[in-house]
Amino acid sequence: MALNLQTKTQHFTNPLYLESGRILEPYDITYETYGKRNEDDSNIIVVCHALTGSHHAAGTYENESKPGWWDGLIGSAKAIDTDKYFVICANVIGSCFGSTGPMSPHPPYQEPYRFKFPVVTIKDMVKAQRILFDRLGIHHVKAIIGGSMGGMQALHFAIHYPKFADNIIALATTYATQPWAIAFNKIAQEAILKDPDFQDGYYDPEIIKENGLSGMAVGRMAGHISFLSHDSMQSKFGREYKRTDGLYELFGKFQVESYLEYNGYNFTKWFDPLSYLYITKAINIYDLSRGFDTLEEALRKIEANLLLISFKADMLFRNEEMKHISDILKQTDTTSFKYIDIESNYGHDAFLVELEKFDFYIKEVLNGN
Amino acid sequence: MALNLQTKTQHFTNPLYLESGRILEPYDITYETYGKRNEDDSNIIVVCHALTGSHHAAGTYENESKPGWWDGLIGSAKAIDTDKYFVICANVIGSCFGSTGPMSPHPPYQEPYRFKFPVVTIKDMVKAQRILFDRLGIHHVKAIIGGSMGGMQALHFAIHYPKFADNIIALATTYATQPWAIAFNKIAQEAILKDPDFQDGYYDPEIIKENGLSGMAVGRMAGHISFLSHDSMQSKFGREYKRTDGLYELFGKFQVESYLEYNGYNFTKWFDPLSYLYITKAINIYDLSRGFDTLEEALRKIEANLLLISFKADMLFRNEEMKHISDILKQTDTTSFKYIDIESNYGHDAFLVELEKFDFYIKEVLNGN
Repeated sequence: MALNLQTKTQHFTNPLYLESGRILEPYDITYETYGKRNEDDSNIIVVCHALTGSHHAAGTYENESKPGWWDGLIGSAKAIDTDKYFVICANVIGSCFGSTGPMSPHPPYQEPYRFKFPVVTIKDMVKAQRILFDRLGIHHVKAIIGGSMGGMQALHFAIHYPKFADNIIALATTYATQPWAIAFNKIAQEAILKDPDFQDGYYDPEIIKENGLSGMAVGRMAGHISFLSHDSMQSKFGREYKRTDGLYELFGKFQVESYLEYNGYNFTKWFDPLSYLYITKAINIYDLSRGFDTLEEALRKIEANLLLISFKADMLFRNEEMKHISDILKQTDTTSFKYIDIESNYGHDAFLVELEKFDFYIKEVLNGN
Repeated sequence: MALNLQTKTQHFTNPLYLESGRILEPYDITYETYGKRNEDDSNIIVVCHALTGSHHAAGTYENESKPGWWDGLIGSAKAIDTDKYFVICANVIGSCFGSTGPMSPHPPYQEPYRFKFPVVTIKDMVKAQRILFDRLGIHHVKAIIGGSMGGMQALHFAIHYPKFADNIIALATTYATQPWAIAFNKIAQEAILKDPDFQDGYYDPEIIKENGLSGMAVGRMAGHISFLSHDSMQSKFGREYKRTDGLYELFGKFQVESYLEYNGYNFTKWFDPLSYLYITKAINIYDLSRGFDTLEEALRKIEANLLLISFKADMLFRNEEMKHISDILKQTDTTSFKYIDIESNYGHDAFLVELEKFDFYIKEVLNGN
């Protein structure tokens, strides 16, 4: 069955109380759904996106060439089978694809918030989605699935809304962001802030999209290093040199340099720099144990069946971070869970790329309940 | 015996023929020496510096607070004992501490070369040092020692001047720069080039030193990530947050962010951005096998006794790169060598920091001959 793609937005006028003590009011949440919702709501699956992802997780719009970011996993007869399940994916607040973020109008004015936008946390993102689901009459779901920042959201759902989902599947993520991930984000934040075209946040978004923002491109290049691994860079690029460039030309390029440049500059055409600052901030301060005495106390709240998937060569959220969660859960013995460490040389991006290495486990969880 | 510190510079008027086919003419080489040269020249040790190092390897100048970059290793009664040995360390061409580099006057003008400076390679750096040594009447040395880019130079000496040194000691280095190291350099190069204060290379160096160059600071931050390791960042910083900052302040900082910021911006006070572009280029195109059919053919040239030291958690030049050299040497069986992989969680910086883990091996080599 073909996906009937449609972007929808819900508007909320009640204040959203944020973890910081500030409020967001009003706010929008943009989302997509795939498949048909059962009458008894027994087939609902929530998908959560990563840093630069969006609500557009699957299918291809008529006027676009690229499918949604997890299209290989979500669709007819795929692991998250849209012939069987009703899938919903919402753009997180703070992002730039329709949900309220720093470039949304700052009420009562029509001018964007820019730096007046409040810091949002992963908990806030999850809370906003929970309110969206309420609006849609969704009070219980079969599963919540996400990788990287999407996995942070899935784990937050598990702890703060323990009865909301039967199953939680978190991939390539962590219990609290570690210094190397913060350091990579720092490069991007600093490069954006110091780019004069960023104009201290008072840039014209259309001009940025048109001309690019080299600071954000540089930051994204640093991001791409963290998404890969030594081995994947070795096999993707090795020491291949661009044929047209002379080795002794100062600006001659290795393939890896072309790759970073292309992806870095292309990124500035479709992502907003203020959203990048705010979402990387949310990732940096992500800590499942916040509000609890210990991480163990937080994890004890979980009632859903849990599937944790890490990837061996993930340099950003290392497999041992996921193992740490698993080790604690093993001790508490409070909920059923499975932890799988996938053999992969790909690095962090594996959760987006090497679907055939883990889609079976997702299917297994979804079929098992 | 106290080091009698003195910076010396030799001026050369003959052309230096570079690997690129271009020439450098005239050129200067700045260097330091420590200890007393024997009459029979049997106690000479060459030390080679890394990317941002200089000829100032040991001792502390009266007007400065920081000692030379390998002061823990070089000095009276230290592993490289200046009571016994005559140590010489030269600033590489392309650098910015006295030897000819892109900000040196471009003859016949007094204006700096800037982008008219030729690309120099590790082989060129070594060749220039060899010419300096000739000038000083040094035709044979006891040992050549270097880490990181210094190790690249040591290995180049071993292959291209096989009779020049009795011993070669190379630490934390590789046989050819791999894509992840190139990628980290790319971040820095791109950030420098796109910084408007860089003025497309036509910056005023005094203004840069005064005001800093945020592009180079950002690039250096990326460098610092590559110099550390997951474990060293974990133990150095963890998730420590600056006490004065609120967690929900957008610009609130983790300790790791402060560390990167401080080191990044401080760096721009003492290093030249054009030198950074040229030296990272030299590192990127470094490949011991260039000019030979295979790496094995290159390594077969070595006649010196070789000590290779790698560090287990080095993310920049991985221990397996050094092991690769060792594996080939084991097969060819053409020269005596020892390969040691040091247990360390510190990352690449270990060769500058964890001296007590390897200084014994250096002493052993120097005493053994």
